[in-house]
Amino acid sequence: MLSLFELQALVEQLVAEAAIQSEPQALYEPANYILSLGGKRVRPLLCLIAAELVGGRATDAFSVAKCVEYFHNFSLVHDDIMDNAALRRGKQTIHERYGLNTAILSGDVMLVCAYEQLTENIDKYLPYLFQVFNRTARQVCEGQQYDMLFETAKEVSIKEYLQMIELKTAVLLGASLQMGAIVGGANKRNRQMLYEYGRHIGIAFQLQDDILDTFGDEKTFGKKIGGDILQNKKTFLLIKALELADPTTQTKLHFWINEPKPVEQEKIAAVTQIYQQLGVLQLAQAEMQHHYNLATQYLDDIAVAEQQKTNLRLITQQLMHRVQ
Amino acid sequence: MLSLFELQALVEQLVAEAAIQSEPQALYEPANYILSLGGKRVRPLLCLIAAELVGGRATDAFSVAKCVEYFHNFSLVHDDIMDNAALRRGKQTIHERYGLNTAILSGDVMLVCAYEQLTENIDKYLPYLFQVFNRTARQVCEGQQYDMLFETAKEVSIKEYLQMIELKTAVLLGASLQMGAIVGGANKRNRQMLYEYGRHIGIAFQLQDDILDTFGDEKTFGKKIGGDILQNKKTFLLIKALELADPTTQTKLHFWINEPKPVEQEKIAAVTQIYQQLGVLQLAQAEMQHHYNLATQYLDDIAVAEQQKTNLRLITQQLMHRVQ
Repeated sequence: MLSLFELQALVEQLVAEAAIQSEPQALYEPANYILSLGGKRVRPLLCLIAAELVGGRATDAFSVAKCVEYFHNFSLVHDDIMDNAALRRGKQTIHERYGLNTAILSGDVMLVCAYEQLTENIDKYLPYLFQVFNRTARQVCEGQQYDMLFETAKEVSIKEYLQMIELKTAVLLGASLQMGAIVGGANKRNRQMLYEYGRHIGIAFQLQDDILDTFGDEKTFGKKIGGDILQNKKTFLLIKALELADPTTQTKLHFWINEPKPVEQEKIAAVTQIYQQLGVLQLAQAEMQHHYNLATQYLDDIAVAEQQKTNLRLITQQLMHRVQ
Repeated sequence: MLSLFELQALVEQLVAEAAIQSEPQALYEPANYILSLGGKRVRPLLCLIAAELVGGRATDAFSVAKCVEYFHNFSLVHDDIMDNAALRRGKQTIHERYGLNTAILSGDVMLVCAYEQLTENIDKYLPYLFQVFNRTARQVCEGQQYDMLFETAKEVSIKEYLQMIELKTAVLLGASLQMGAIVGGANKRNRQMLYEYGRHIGIAFQLQDDILDTFGDEKTFGKKIGGDILQNKKTFLLIKALELADPTTQTKLHFWINEPKPVEQEKIAAVTQIYQQLGVLQLAQAEMQHHYNLATQYLDDIAVAEQQKTNLRLITQQLMHRVQ
């Protein structure tokens, strides 16, 4: 079994290989640009880890790892258009740099490239990979639509919110593990366990992100604290606060939500204080812990030697360390 | 074998079945809206015709017919955004009716739905269908990118133009026939012949469209004559005219191309006259005829009884009748 460090090096190699050498350049250069922007490459890494966990070789999972990385980048490019985002990882987004039309089309072609990767496993595993990937791709689109709908929705329930983050974020982590497991030769039960593990850990990650955006440390979080509050983003924290607040606190919250030009630090401080009064941080942590525990149970139950689970436990800790 | 009329009725049925009954409505309603707008449904019809031509049943090709229809509609939705088109078949385009973000995302999900249809043939034909469809989907994106590039390109050659229309339009007609042939149980040679037939007939159709846009009859063409001339669209006619014109005629052509606010009928008349002087109509007709003849040769060479080719010959005549 390779070390996590060695697997990460392999991921860098396969992502470099994923650069598309075709014509017209005007279509593929933007795709290669976004693919080269870096990031943690969690999804392809999960593919490789899962393949090894079930007893296969990391290199067997190269094509599915490329598949999920293309897909993730397709969704980033189109999401950035929808969110009107100018920057991604400190660099210009594709639509800012190359224009809207090219951004749409480069995204489209990356989705096709994601599917193309599955032909590498055409003899043995294609039907299984294809069904997992189709379902996941569709769910991610649905999740993005819910996310957009929630921006203007009057009321969003915690249940709806959890479903949205599951679709938009968590199922792709589950699918990355499941697809890695498939090409690694896992049996059906272990494939499913790894999917469930990824799904729950994905929900936990997203809840952690919500928490850190308000209660994190700017240095380790890497983004400005309070961004979600300033945007009135319907996170677990805000939804729960609106649910629990008494009429007076409701009024206060709505004052800040509707204030057209608040002093930023005042708004962040006031809303954070309300969150603290209502104990929504603890509730979010409890929900996160619940999904983390479920994930851990699934991982415990996978029928392979404990030693083979090392890398997955390790990467999970690295990604969750900020709140553990 | 069913009659063309019966096949067309089946296509209407399968397109009605293709309406997506899932949540969120905000995502799927726009998809169902564009799917319901009508049109000639040439691509799914070609799937059914090909399946029967090679000895299979039309119903075997339902899923691949839905696949190509979803794909075609995905590309329409995204192309309409890129072309800034307000109307499609006399109705509002998706981005006009539902907004840009929903149009991008509904297009994306239709591309996924297209792929999902291939799982219906998962046991027997998936690898073949998947490879044809992946290649075609990628080529269509490339064709659209070339089309956009040509809008602002200084010079486009006839060769480049023919490659663009092949990618943007013709390969999907070829793939529709090839995929229908695959699920109809065709051997490799006949699959390939049908693909080549569709590819060449697709190029012929597009050249016919170019010709009719300038030299057609408004009543039967269904669009205003001269639209391409007014938009300075780099069609076969304009590219060839720029290639053949002597310096004086070049100057005249560039005058009309660069005239910011021409009297529409004057511009159409003047450019049409130049086309007539240079004989580019005849050259376009010859090129169209060349691809039509090639297509016919491929169809002649398919190793099935002549009677089984009836519907494909018939639909081709219907679609080409305007210039035959």
